[in-house]
Amino acid sequence: MNFLKEYTQYKNLINSKLSKTAISGKPELIYSPVKYILNGGGKRMRPILTLLSSQAVGGKKYSAINAALAIEMLHAFTLVHDDIMDNAPTRRGRKTIHTKWNISAAILVGDGIIALSFLELLKTKSNKISEISKVFTKGLIDVCDGQALDKEFETNKNVTIKDYFKMIDLKTGRMVATSTEIGAIIGGGKSSEISALRKFGESLGRAFQIQDDLLDVISNKKTFGKEIGNDITSGKKTFLLLNALKKSTGKDKDLIKSIIKNNGIEKNKIEKVKDIYNRLGIINQSKNEVGKEILKACDKLYSLPKTDARQMLFWFASMLLQRKF
Amino acid sequence: MNFLKEYTQYKNLINSKLSKTAISGKPELIYSPVKYILNGGGKRMRPILTLLSSQAVGGKKYSAINAALAIEMLHAFTLVHDDIMDNAPTRRGRKTIHTKWNISAAILVGDGIIALSFLELLKTKSNKISEISKVFTKGLIDVCDGQALDKEFETNKNVTIKDYFKMIDLKTGRMVATSTEIGAIIGGGKSSEISALRKFGESLGRAFQIQDDLLDVISNKKTFGKEIGNDITSGKKTFLLLNALKKSTGKDKDLIKSIIKNNGIEKNKIEKVKDIYNRLGIINQSKNEVGKEILKACDKLYSLPKTDARQMLFWFASMLLQRKF
Repeated sequence: MNFLKEYTQYKNLINSKLSKTAISGKPELIYSPVKYILNGGGKRMRPILTLLSSQAVGGKKYSAINAALAIEMLHAFTLVHDDIMDNAPTRRGRKTIHTKWNISAAILVGDGIIALSFLELLKTKSNKISEISKVFTKGLIDVCDGQALDKEFETNKNVTIKDYFKMIDLKTGRMVATSTEIGAIIGGGKSSEISALRKFGESLGRAFQIQDDLLDVISNKKTFGKEIGNDITSGKKTFLLLNALKKSTGKDKDLIKSIIKNNGIEKNKIEKVKDIYNRLGIINQSKNEVGKEILKACDKLYSLPKTDARQMLFWFASMLLQRKF
Repeated sequence: MNFLKEYTQYKNLINSKLSKTAISGKPELIYSPVKYILNGGGKRMRPILTLLSSQAVGGKKYSAINAALAIEMLHAFTLVHDDIMDNAPTRRGRKTIHTKWNISAAILVGDGIIALSFLELLKTKSNKISEISKVFTKGLIDVCDGQALDKEFETNKNVTIKDYFKMIDLKTGRMVATSTEIGAIIGGGKSSEISALRKFGESLGRAFQIQDDLLDVISNKKTFGKEIGNDITSGKKTFLLLNALKKSTGKDKDLIKSIIKNNGIEKNKIEKVKDIYNRLGIINQSKNEVGKEILKACDKLYSLPKTDARQMLFWFASMLLQRKF
């Protein structure tokens, strides 16, 4: 089985379907940016996980396609609104909606995409549509709660690593887990299988976020698609910063503390912070944590029947370990 | 039947149920404002229409309560996000969320309330939950489209009265029609009854919006709860302004045109504009239009069985004619 080829096929299908969403759309103010964001590329990780999860429990190949698209749209909504809140000028190398249009348009577009995502989800032919809708809705609530925690962290000087995990589990983990759980329900999975795939998604989501924190330090702008060291200069309470705060002593600790106190640090100090991360073993610790979560995720897959879809899920998880983008 | 007493009972029930929503809420950043907005009072017109519509087609008294609450929550969401886009400092005499907290909080709160409203809706026990969810979702899409049109109108100097009706039908009418339609579905109405109640809602919504445009001119701050003449000073393309543009000549037309050209006019010109509205018969025309739509709405009710709930719907519609708030 050629995993990469298979992945590309899935991705192309998602891209093609998304490009046909809301195509005749008027008013312009809402549908031009909707098209812009839905055609903006990305890894399409979540919808592919939904499709694979459905197949992995015996569902037909594309029976979860509407839910998959709905999940990707919901993800797109979070990007649009988060970018406003974070004052982010670019995303995936392109202007963000509130920069290219304006804040009102970006708010409306996010709202509209939530609605469109529910409409897409409700096209799913399943006698479990009520349960599916509930999981989807709870996923949305958790993502909002996670984003609220993330915002609260900006002014909270006492964020712990436990708080951090709670936040990323809600903000990032839950949507990945929603992707896999809904796929498993649509595929007709047993409750043990649905639970296994949800937990797979939770661990994968956690790994994904820690990897994201890590890439902000060890990647480069071209592959990462955004400025390196952004989390450091903006004082974001990442897995790395919180662990550095815990482990550091003396002058190192003073510097880390100053980042938290001042909500960031000058750009020319990025290398100094990186050096602390290296010296204290934070980089390796983060890599280990990602690896640990990926293993935990894969462990859940063993309870599923041996299928090509399960193999794809293994591959997907392992790819994350090598992710540079 | 004491309509006002009955109405108050319904309203108190809605208020009490809403006050228990999201009560244990954390994170604070999202749930404090959620509570603030849901406990902010209001006429609770939409949820009461849902309850009455359900009963009017034979549904049990409170069988549509979850849908009713969901509708009111969705309405609350529109207020929160619209207030950001409109830079509105107050709402119902209290600070708006983005003023009392900040824009990020207000965006998040709106998003969270959408999710909470779906969660509430999905509690409805009905074998038509998929259809109900679709109507609800399409209502949300239309409201977003209506708001987008409203925003586009701000910079469009050529808005026609036809455009205006399209916008208010989407922005205001659709949510009222969604309230009545969903109530009718939950109550087990025949398709002719569901259609009649949807159309009742559409006309009522239209009447409500024109009345709102009118009250901006003829009400007073205390009863209206907001500054009088706001639509004039901000150059909003209301039913009155667009008709004045059509009917006026000479100096009157110049003044009306200048409002559109400059996106508003000084506060001290409000009386002058009011005078034009009066002289050209725009005030009476608007009152007539409201009356016409109310009659159209009531006409739809005659096809329903004679019940107390239907009587309440008649009363509700007639109250709108006397609305001063």
